[in-house]
Amino acid sequence: MPTSNDIRSTVNISPTDYAKVDPRAIHKQLDISLSRPQLNDDGSIRHFLGVEGLNKAQLQRIIAKAETFIDEKGQLLNRPELEGCTVMNLFFEPSTRTRTTFEVAEKRLGANVLNIDIARSSTKKGESLRDTLWNLQAMTADIFVVRHSASGAAHFMATEVTPDIAIINGGDGWHAHPTQGMLDMLTIHREAPRPFEELSVAIIGDIKHSRVARSDISALQTLGVKDIRVIAPRTLLPKGIERFGVNVYEDMNECVADCDVIMGLRIQNERIGSPLLASSSEYYKHYGITPERVALAKPDALIMHPGPMNRGIEIASSVADGAQSVILKQVSNGVAIRMAVLALAMEGQRAHQAARS
Amino acid sequence: MPTSNDIRSTVNISPTDYAKVDPRAIHKQLDISLSRPQLNDDGSIRHFLGVEGLNKAQLQRIIAKAETFIDEKGQLLNRPELEGCTVMNLFFEPSTRTRTTFEVAEKRLGANVLNIDIARSSTKKGESLRDTLWNLQAMTADIFVVRHSASGAAHFMATEVTPDIAIINGGDGWHAHPTQGMLDMLTIHREAPRPFEELSVAIIGDIKHSRVARSDISALQTLGVKDIRVIAPRTLLPKGIERFGVNVYEDMNECVADCDVIMGLRIQNERIGSPLLASSSEYYKHYGITPERVALAKPDALIMHPGPMNRGIEIASSVADGAQSVILKQVSNGVAIRMAVLALAMEGQRAHQAARS
Amino acid sequence: MPTSNDIRSTVNISPTDYAKVDPRAIHKQLDISLSRPQLNDDGSIRHFLGVEGLNKAQLQRIIAKAETFIDEKGQLLNRPELEGCTVMNLFFEPSTRTRTTFEVAEKRLGANVLNIDIARSSTKKGESLRDTLWNLQAMTADIFVVRHSASGAAHFMATEVTPDIAIINGGDGWHAHPTQGMLDMLTIHREAPRPFEELSVAIIGDIKHSRVARSDISALQTLGVKDIRVIAPRTLLPKGIERFGVNVYEDMNECVADCDVIMGLRIQNERIGSPLLASSSEYYKHYGITPERVALAKPDALIMHPGPMNRGIEIASSVADGAQSVILKQVSNGVAIRMAVLALAMEGQRAHQAARS
Repeated sequence: MPTSNDIRSTVNISPTDYAKVDPRAIHKQLDISLSRPQLNDDGSIRHFLGVEGLNKAQLQRIIAKAETFIDEKGQLLNRPELEGCTVMNLFFEPSTRTRTTFEVAEKRLGANVLNIDIARSSTKKGESLRDTLWNLQAMTADIFVVRHSASGAAHFMATEVTPDIAIINGGDGWHAHPTQGMLDMLTIHREAPRPFEELSVAIIGDIKHSRVARSDISALQTLGVKDIRVIAPRTLLPKGIERFGVNVYEDMNECVADCDVIMGLRIQNERIGSPLLASSSEYYKHYGITPERVALAKPDALIMHPGPMNRGIEIASSVADGAQSVILKQVSNGVAIRMAVLALAMEGQRAHQAARS
Repeated sequence: MPTSNDIRSTVNISPTDYAKVDPRAIHKQLDISLSRPQLNDDGSIRHFLGVEGLNKAQLQRIIAKAETFIDEKGQLLNRPELEGCTVMNLFFEPSTRTRTTFEVAEKRLGANVLNIDIARSSTKKGESLRDTLWNLQAMTADIFVVRHSASGAAHFMATEVTPDIAIINGGDGWHAHPTQGMLDMLTIHREAPRPFEELSVAIIGDIKHSRVARSDISALQTLGVKDIRVIAPRTLLPKGIERFGVNVYEDMNECVADCDVIMGLRIQNERIGSPLLASSSEYYKHYGITPERVALAKPDALIMHPGPMNRGIEIASSVADGAQSVILKQVSNGVAIRMAVLALAMEGQRAHQAARS
Repeated sequence: MPTSNDIRSTVNISPTDYAKVDPRAIHKQLDISLSRPQLNDDGSIRHFLGVEGLNKAQLQRIIAKAETFIDEKGQLLNRPELEGCTVMNLFFEPSTRTRTTFEVAEKRLGANVLNIDIARSSTKKGESLRDTLWNLQAMTADIFVVRHSASGAAHFMATEVTPDIAIINGGDGWHAHPTQGMLDMLTIHREAPRPFEELSVAIIGDIKHSRVARSDISALQTLGVKDIRVIAPRTLLPKGIERFGVNVYEDMNECVADCDVIMGLRIQNERIGSPLLASSSEYYKHYGITPERVALAKPDALIMHPGPMNRGIEIASSVADGAQSVILKQVSNGVAIRMAVLALAMEGQRAHQAARS
């Protein structure tokens, strides 16, 4: 088992450092360090920290579980799988959207839910993350959903908590946003007319600062996608990204040509007008997802975006609201995926407890 | 069906503009535009946006439903009518009092409740109201309770959401606060010794800026009250108000003489000392609900106030806490009315879904 | 029954005033004034305001009740004793830790829980505490959990609310933090190898500003502890404290010698560097709970702290995390004690209601 020092040194790679180390080495280290704490010996989920370290069968199992929560009309079902369980949503950085979909998921599963706005509380009193965590676990939760601005925070927690608490990563720094990655996979699985192995997927935008992009690329590769294309202004593209097995494009029209899936990423408003990005109109001209560009992709290509969208910057409104857009389905699927991950983690925890006793 | 442009132009009438258009024309337009989205074809409630557009039988049905949630001792009952339903309280402006009574009502009905403090979240990221709304509905709620500072916001939402979500107006700008209006009707119905048709009701105070007054006047008229009296400093009285069928008074003693119900309205603290209102002592002298003035009304007259009260400005403490005061009963009735509106909207939605399938 | 004026004059004693009045007189008055509202005629709990005024059998009953919520593995159980009940957490001052353990306790008992952040709401509109309280009770809760910066606030509320609402004191000013006191008693009861009557307990630190210390001293005495030792910088020790039957020490080594329980108190960061406390290193040197000092106590002495800890100021990290520390057990026991107090108050309220009808 790696010490927490090992883990931090491998996981906390700044996105700008991709080029400095051999990416396969990183991948392998990540696979090992992430799979260790997040899986039980039998391969079942104990924590859900990242899609890295999970194999194809494990990702497919999450997708299949999520589909059991959706009825034939596409409506979400209520299920008692977390009844009597206590879930704490520990948001060290605010995110209404992610927190709300987790909360909907938890309540649909019958959990007792506590929202703990850590940013405004104990840390003010100068308590360390470790003490905060130990105190929260002493309050006897079954699951912590964690959102943190520091890469590796969820992973660190998983190595610190008792065996009786499962950690779900709700987004940590630039590292990963694995439930977002998995809801994208669920959406492609349900909406794309072809299996993963036959798809071409274009990812457009601020890949450098996007935990979504990281989780998506890893999950797509694990699920068998061979043609992953990325495009971004050079300032928003991590160096050495092509060594991760993705194809880097410089021309947007070429990037989307004959594609099956077009995924836009959000440009943080604060980057526009910064040295990283001259202007929003310039961005739209070069990288905007316009009707003309969509016409270059396959006729049944899916349009995806993690939201919230900057209409007229990353994407034309007519595309966002058009027939090929599955952007709102991504949101609904986000609830189903979170239900799946929560239910599987609770199953894994019960199995782990049973194995010990 | 009116376009949303039509709707906004009719609903967003500034209170100062009452005089510019024929009030009967406004009323008729409001009736049509509000009844359309809020009722199913069979007259059952689908959304609850305003008391305008609802007829006497519909208002009585809400009152009767609310009374089923109150036992013979006046205690509120728990009921399973929203079990398995997800209710999101979307408060675009803060209101602890209204939010809390809604939350109590929702939990007494067994709903899964999510409080979403919109003011502090997605709008910060520059998302439009429409996108926020679409995202929230994709998270699969059954009911949205909406509080917004813009007049017509709830109505706008009702025209934008899917058929699977009911909108309850928790107060929108100066337009309406219909659950407050209905809790006042429930209180009068339960506490007044005479039926609506025989009552004289005096409404005192900042009618111009009061969404409560608007909803109350409309509901009182629909329920058959013929003698509605209003009084306010000229600066706080909308021009042309008398054309809505209310009697405007200049002398407080005359206004309350022989009245059955005396309703005070809250003066916003920020208006005191502004050009609209010279001083609070001046206000109390001319418009304060004092024991002497209460003595001029019928001996069993009800004293009402939507709260929070400014004691010694709008109302004497001895009156507020006196035997004729039903001010705290208004608060309890507020929970019962909100339970009624939520339960009826859910019934209406289920009927609508059944009709479609 | 004392008038609320009486109550405030007895309860609102500033800690610096201990010396001015005869402590036995205060104690007696407190016992009378606190026992009156918090107990039914049969001695069962109606409100839980302070450990003062409760006798040994009553404290033991709370401890015994708490133990019914803990299984043989030390895990907390869910129980339906508040099902259908509405609990409002009224936090007039923020406290994430206390609020969270109450919320966990309430949800484990099946209550409908509402968190009302009073600090940010109605008081802004200038409403008095009494009006806020009356409005909240009109919203029909069964239990209020109250946290307030003013000493005696919970007690004041208990004299103001209807018989149908139980008040639980979640900490009021410098006066009391009785659930913290009781969780400390539960922890000692479960962890100490000897009964209360045979224990020596050392309390170290800011006794002057600590509502925890007050509640602990009172509860320890009621439960039969004869040797209670206190030590603090003179500026943080209330004058006349020795007249309460505790032994004041000047030398830390003597204070902990042969002790069974060592309780550290939190130093508020804002006091360090103030005239009250020169520096944190100075404090640690004289009053820090170090391994060397722990070695002077009994070999099985318990190390306790109410948290959040200032490691390296009040306590050495190795002691906080060492084998004798029961600091995290205090947190878990806090949930069990809050469950016990909530369940007993609800029982008492139901008995009271039955007696009236």
